Amino acid sequence: MHQTFEAGLGINLLHANQAGADHNRAHFDEWGITCLNIMSSPGAGKTVLLEKTIAALNDELKIAVIEGDMTTELDAERLRQYGVPVIAINTGRSCHLDSKMVAGGIHQLEGQYEPKEFDLVLVENVGNLVCPAEFEVGEHFKVALLSVTEGEDKPLKYPIMFQEADCLLITKIDLAPYLDIDIDRIAGNVRQMNPHVAIAPVSAKTGEGLDIWFDWVRQVVNRQQRSLALASVSK
Amino acid sequence: MHQTFEAGLGINLLHANQAGADHNRAHFDEWGITCLNIMSSPGAGKTVLLEKTIAALNDELKIAVIEGDMTTELDAERLRQYGVPVIAINTGRSCHLDSKMVAGGIHQLEGQYEPKEFDLVLVENVGNLVCPAEFEVGEHFKVALLSVTEGEDKPLKYPIMFQEADCLLITKIDLAPYLDIDIDRIAGNVRQMNPHVAIAPVSAKTGEGLDIWFDWVRQVVNRQQRSLALASVSK
Repeated sequence: MHQTFEAGLGINLLHANQAGADHNRAHFDEWGITCLNIMSSPGAGKTVLLEKTIAALNDELKIAVIEGDMTTELDAERLRQYGVPVIAINTGRSCHLDSKMVAGGIHQLEGQYEPKEFDLVLVENVGNLVCPAEFEVGEHFKVALLSVTEGEDKPLKYPIMFQEADCLLITKIDLAPYLDIDIDRIAGNVRQMNPHVAIAPVSAKTGEGLDIWFDWVRQVVNRQQRSLALASVSK
Repeated sequence: MHQTFEAGLGINLLHANQAGADHNRAHFDEWGITCLNIMSSPGAGKTVLLEKTIAALNDELKIAVIEGDMTTELDAERLRQYGVPVIAINTGRSCHLDSKMVAGGIHQLEGQYEPKEFDLVLVENVGNLVCPAEFEVGEHFKVALLSVTEGEDKPLKYPIMFQEADCLLITKIDLAPYLDIDIDRIAGNVRQMNPHVAIAPVSAKTGEGLDIWFDWVRQVVNRQQRSLALASVSK
């Protein structure tokens, strides 16, 4: 549960959340980990994307998952089958992960593993196109998914998510032939408000476009590790 | 924007919202209006359902719409083409309608029309499967939509919406042949936590199942008007 923004309260909460997110990010930086915050509406395909990503990249990158859900460990259980550590966080009545919840996940990871061994932490947020975009959890990059079944107008109607995203995956493109939808128009609507976002239309079912996404992940992990190496040399 | 439930604050806010919702409902009752709160994830098909509903029932019921969106009047403009009053509420950073926002909409309606003329007010909430379920706006019945593209597991993962719903529409069933999905399993998952919910699988595209939904609307409006008439006799 959550409230509307009033009486300065919202601002204080966002400040406190931001401080916690910066703290989490400092941990990730210390360990040489790149963290991605994966966000979308319910059912846009976050979990299947993580399944495909882990299967494709697990040989070259050491991956862990922090899995946010209101209730159940259904998604966490799906991902554990791929042999990676999955820390499940149940948010209860909360409609998004916040930095405090993810800090709890990080401490669990730290208690059970050597965090410096990991290259990539994938945070799967609660399915919600609104609230997660406002609560940083310590990620280096935000990844938004929008299913073609959700319609062309969604970037205009839910702008914050699409303004904040570093990467947008337009998912379930195998269903596009059965819909009255123009993928280029979706991409255009998003670029209008966020010119630098990386956009890849993908289908987890057919595999189309996934290579572009995997390359984007490789690149950001690489770039992040190089910049951390430079920062430690310059100390 | 919204916050997590802590320090009793959430409870007070829900209490204040509930009082406002009761006040709105008292207005609707005074005017003989039935109010439905229509909720779902983004892109599950709320607006197209309203289009079809208004087109089908506008001759027999006098309908008004309160249309909630974070930004834009895109949906409100779509619905105005059907010749019914549409009050647009932009929620800004808020991820749900609350009773105060809807009270503003009711007062606009009251200022421009004779509210006693209306039979049915359809409130289209912000696209969000989590937060709207917790904030009553003065509705008599809650209607949840779940698109078949969202997956069978969603009722288990986002339980509050499905526990609270009086009517569940499983939408976009024309896409079911292209998905690995069992509509009966979705219905079963929901009935398990909410045995009395009315469930109708529908397609706004082909029209399949819409008659069942229209009948449900007619029934609840009828029942509501009869119970208001009885209450006024017994006074």
